[in-house]
Amino acid sequence: MARKSFPLSKVYGLLEPGPVVLVTTAGGEHANIMTLSWHTMLEFVPPLVGCVISNRNYSFSRLLATRECVINIPTVEIAGQVVGCGNTSGANLDKFKHFSLTPRPAMQVGAPLIEECFAHLECRLTDTRLVDSYCFFVLEVVKAWRNPAVKNPRTIHHLGGGNFMVAGEKIRLKSKMK
Amino acid sequence: MARKSFPLSKVYGLLEPGPVVLVTTAGGEHANIMTLSWHTMLEFVPPLVGCVISNRNYSFSRLLATRECVINIPTVEIAGQVVGCGNTSGANLDKFKHFSLTPRPAMQVGAPLIEECFAHLECRLTDTRLVDSYCFFVLEVVKAWRNPAVKNPRTIHHLGGGNFMVAGEKIRLKSKMK
Repeated sequence: MARKSFPLSKVYGLLEPGPVVLVTTAGGEHANIMTLSWHTMLEFVPPLVGCVISNRNYSFSRLLATRECVINIPTVEIAGQVVGCGNTSGANLDKFKHFSLTPRPAMQVGAPLIEECFAHLECRLTDTRLVDSYCFFVLEVVKAWRNPAVKNPRTIHHLGGGNFMVAGEKIRLKSKMK
Repeated sequence: MARKSFPLSKVYGLLEPGPVVLVTTAGGEHANIMTLSWHTMLEFVPPLVGCVISNRNYSFSRLLATRECVINIPTVEIAGQVVGCGNTSGANLDKFKHFSLTPRPAMQVGAPLIEECFAHLECRLTDTRLVDSYCFFVLEVVKAWRNPAVKNPRTIHHLGGGNFMVAGEKIRLKSKMK
């Protein structure tokens, strides 16, 4: 698997642009995959990520039980599978098998990496205070990976109703922002 | 100003793709503008948005004091001004004047809309439970506006270190997702 360790201090640059992500959880008979767009950075270092996983989703109880997950970042090449994972439930389907995605062991958590994604964030659940109100989970990224061969990842960005925007051109502006 | 009321039930489609936004607040001698990428949807209807506004930012105390703001969504045409707003502080600068941006009155809140943006979300602060821990504010969108002349807004998406991705092509996939 073509991936390299990625500095935790740069994780924000992967999530800030708002890509659709695939969250994997372990536990049960098979690992599960959930498609998700409702996430935000909360802190640079250690990287904290907040995300919404509805209690109508199979991954909700898995994340609460295992307190671990992996945030995998896909590109347009597997957009069909990404949407497929969003339209099905792991309660009665092994999504890895069904969508021909390849699970690989993570280093620090029990949930698997998805080989077909270009970046992976191994996460531990650290704060559940807003789970009751908004199904909002606070995760700490404990290990990050990135495929260095993918220079310009064409991430996908949900516009609603089955419409997606694909990452376009890059521009550089003089900025003091991180 | 070319804008039309926008249905609250469709607000998620504006924020899900992860655009850089400009948050305006009232109070003090002049309204302020803050550039921000750390936001997420929390609920469809009424639309709830979570966002991080650091306590090192001038807007932090303004938002706490007024409990209102507007999330304005810019496009690449004003990218220079967006970065400018991110590199300066409203403590000693009227950013509207300095960056030649035009404030327009909102309908339900005291903070202004920025005319040069293509969409605007008038927000009330509804939950501050995670402000102490992460400077994370929960906002309810009470009124939304969109310029219907902008069919394919070229939103900008922060990649870190002054690099931005501009919204690219649109694709449509068969999806049961909202």
